[in-house]
Amino acid sequence: MGDLPDRSAAFFEWYLAAVDAAELTDKRYPVKGMNVWTPYGFLARRQMDRILVEEIERSGARPVEFPALIPQTEFQKEKEHIKGFDAQVYWVTRGGATELDVPLVLRPTSETAMYPMFALWVRSHQDLPLTVYQIVNTFRYETKTTRPFLRVREIHFFEEHSCQTDAEAASARVDANLASFAAIARRLALPYLALRRPEWDKFPGAFYSVALDIPVGGARTLQIGSVHHYRENFSGPYGIRYEAADGSSRLVHQTTFGLSERLLGAVVAVHGDGRGVAFPSELAPYQVVIVPIPGRNGPDPVPWARTLADRLRARGLRVHMDGREERPGAKYYHWEARGVPLRLEVGGREATQATATAVDRHGNRSVAGPEGLEASVEEALRAFDRRLAERAQTAFREAFAPAASEADLVGSTRVRLFGWCGREACGHAVETAIDGALLGTLVGPPPGEGPAPVACLVCGATEEIRWAAAGRPL
Amino acid sequence: MGDLPDRSAAFFEWYLAAVDAAELTDKRYPVKGMNVWTPYGFLARRQMDRILVEEIERSGARPVEFPALIPQTEFQKEKEHIKGFDAQVYWVTRGGATELDVPLVLRPTSETAMYPMFALWVRSHQDLPLTVYQIVNTFRYETKTTRPFLRVREIHFFEEHSCQTDAEAASARVDANLASFAAIARRLALPYLALRRPEWDKFPGAFYSVALDIPVGGARTLQIGSVHHYRENFSGPYGIRYEAADGSSRLVHQTTFGLSERLLGAVVAVHGDGRGVAFPSELAPYQVVIVPIPGRNGPDPVPWARTLADRLRARGLRVHMDGREERPGAKYYHWEARGVPLRLEVGGREATQATATAVDRHGNRSVAGPEGLEASVEEALRAFDRRLAERAQTAFREAFAPAASEADLVGSTRVRLFGWCGREACGHAVETAIDGALLGTLVGPPPGEGPAPVACLVCGATEEIRWAAAGRPL
Repeated sequence: MGDLPDRSAAFFEWYLAAVDAAELTDKRYPVKGMNVWTPYGFLARRQMDRILVEEIERSGARPVEFPALIPQTEFQKEKEHIKGFDAQVYWVTRGGATELDVPLVLRPTSETAMYPMFALWVRSHQDLPLTVYQIVNTFRYETKTTRPFLRVREIHFFEEHSCQTDAEAASARVDANLASFAAIARRLALPYLALRRPEWDKFPGAFYSVALDIPVGGARTLQIGSVHHYRENFSGPYGIRYEAADGSSRLVHQTTFGLSERLLGAVVAVHGDGRGVAFPSELAPYQVVIVPIPGRNGPDPVPWARTLADRLRARGLRVHMDGREERPGAKYYHWEARGVPLRLEVGGREATQATATAVDRHGNRSVAGPEGLEASVEEALRAFDRRLAERAQTAFREAFAPAASEADLVGSTRVRLFGWCGREACGHAVETAIDGALLGTLVGPPPGEGPAPVACLVCGATEEIRWAAAGRPL
Repeated sequence: MGDLPDRSAAFFEWYLAAVDAAELTDKRYPVKGMNVWTPYGFLARRQMDRILVEEIERSGARPVEFPALIPQTEFQKEKEHIKGFDAQVYWVTRGGATELDVPLVLRPTSETAMYPMFALWVRSHQDLPLTVYQIVNTFRYETKTTRPFLRVREIHFFEEHSCQTDAEAASARVDANLASFAAIARRLALPYLALRRPEWDKFPGAFYSVALDIPVGGARTLQIGSVHHYRENFSGPYGIRYEAADGSSRLVHQTTFGLSERLLGAVVAVHGDGRGVAFPSELAPYQVVIVPIPGRNGPDPVPWARTLADRLRARGLRVHMDGREERPGAKYYHWEARGVPLRLEVGGREATQATATAVDRHGNRSVAGPEGLEASVEEALRAFDRRLAERAQTAFREAFAPAASEADLVGSTRVRLFGWCGREACGHAVETAIDGALLGTLVGPPPGEGPAPVACLVCGATEEIRWAAAGRPL
């Protein structure tokens, strides 16, 4: 055990080793930053997508899929947006031997694919809200260092787009998206901060952006999603208008909500340890692995192990029976690195008694059965999930510290919380001091206890002071 | 009703009108042949994918996902394959403002993306068979007329790839794929022919190809899938070798199995009628639509309609409650065009009696409840599926006719079945006569009755005569 690099000393080395040990992806594909989803990684992604689909459809969005290729002419209609993406899009310029008349962009995100169609779909206020989402891959010509799930060139992406009657309805959709994300994060046991980004760091084309950030050690943070209010910034250039109840023609107000495979990277980063990945049971490709332990005496445990697997599958659990010719210890190690929440050891005694010895990913042991065997296994999974969430919460709280002065920011090994007056000059002073970014103002209460800030950390102003956070985004 | 073009007189006009009336796709996207999956179309596709995943995973394949972009250097390793695809691939030549050193192909299919990795994954006979699949979009720069689901430039695609120890194991996988397809086709009520394509029409790079064809009126056929045996044609150039049990190093034998959104097009083509699309209940986005019919007297039917919807959903049925302010007749028309298998009409009488009047997509009426209400609805769905399958079988049998001479082929309005000696000259003579294609030799028995052929239709030879089919592929 424990041959992974030290997580706290060398986070990225540990992260890459944990992803490799779990065989979630294969980075040897001959285009750098485009990785292969292995069967095991794909099964985790399938569970992630299932959770997203459930929460998003519950909130009223309907699935669609738009083409991956966007004509240059559509792509360039919104000025800020194109400025934000121009340097990092892939261009399709040729079909067969033919130069295309209009080059096509491989979508880096789908505003410019969807909005020409929204202009056709939206006619009257009765068509609103229009709330659709898609789960597709997007493409970015990354020039920074790529890392599996965290920064890749082909991104497994979730995007919701809505058209609303006015700014207020759009703000309400932003809030609904934040509530959906809270439910998703709860199911993945991922504590996070929702932060309204400062003006200079919002999404290209947005009116305002709320980012979803998690701390990943030291002062480092990882943005795992975002929700944007676009007002009429896109509906203007794309002509998405509706006839209001009073007969007037108005532009829709738009919102978007984006998540990606970074969620999976966040699960690795937050729950992993020296043994490798640890999956919450909602996300685990296999929730239970059964390891039969043949002994010198006693009955063959394999038939009972098979029965056990069938009984648990009948309860809807994802169960893998590891029947390989390997030492049990090697199997334990194998499945711990792959993050399986619960292992059931089945030897001769367990076969005789119709029980199983349950060991969770953190090493907690219990015996399941013979009475209420399935219920005990389910309870062991729930107990594991509770402990996983508690650990994550503890680490989350410890990741933050208040800052009483700019000096506290310098060389900080925590994400810092403080009062901010909202002025850009003060924000940039914070960024210089921490050698990172002003992450924005908190949406919701701060993590941990403590009195609300009364003055700006930089200028000391006492008007309109809000909680802000600063750190070093990955 | 019946404002669609006449199906038998103008098949494509009818097909396009049926797809439009069902709102399965939006063809107005500004890249020709790249269409938008609307919410309703996407829900049908979701069911299609579910069926594919169930059958394919049952047959032992595991999910993966490979990148969409393939370096030119990998793409060009197998000579026949590149010849087959060179004229119809999209090329990515630029990232941001940078010309790429190695241009990238947007996958038209994934052999050349997967096989460099298979060469890393396969080491020993213990790694075999390697059987993986993915459901992704593929891209073809089509120059022919595009039609929704049938011929598009971005294709929703299923592809299984396997590596086997030898030719025999690969043939067995081909057979397993054909068995999986039989199960898929049964669930979609789609009768089909499996045909081993002649040498001159096999997949670029294949040793042999079995195509899955359906008749779609007249002598026209639609290929909805294919299974290929590659032998060592790809493993050679890509160096996919394994150490056999005897220590020798051998090339794997490979197979592939491909399906696409054409399956959905086939469902429209085969089951649709003058009222529009008709979905088998497995594929239907909504299996049951409930239409409340408010009357002048009697209780408000809406509360009962809602209860009914909840009760049916609790049985796992996909139910839509149509609560719009519209005439009931307009709603009937709306959902018939969209292919919903079963409509439940709920008026005051039904609300009082806790029943529902069930009308299936073909107009068959029954009353469900009050006793065994859910079971009656399920039985009405099963009865609809049976009749849908019977109709399709009848039309399938009528689509074929034997040919006793080349003259029978000329201007044929049926797909023709006949004996063929296997010689290319005779095959081409058939193609000239029917002004179409020799579809290949039958895998399995022919549709309908009749004695086995004893002589080649063209040359009269009596050795190695096999059933062959000829028609006009779309």
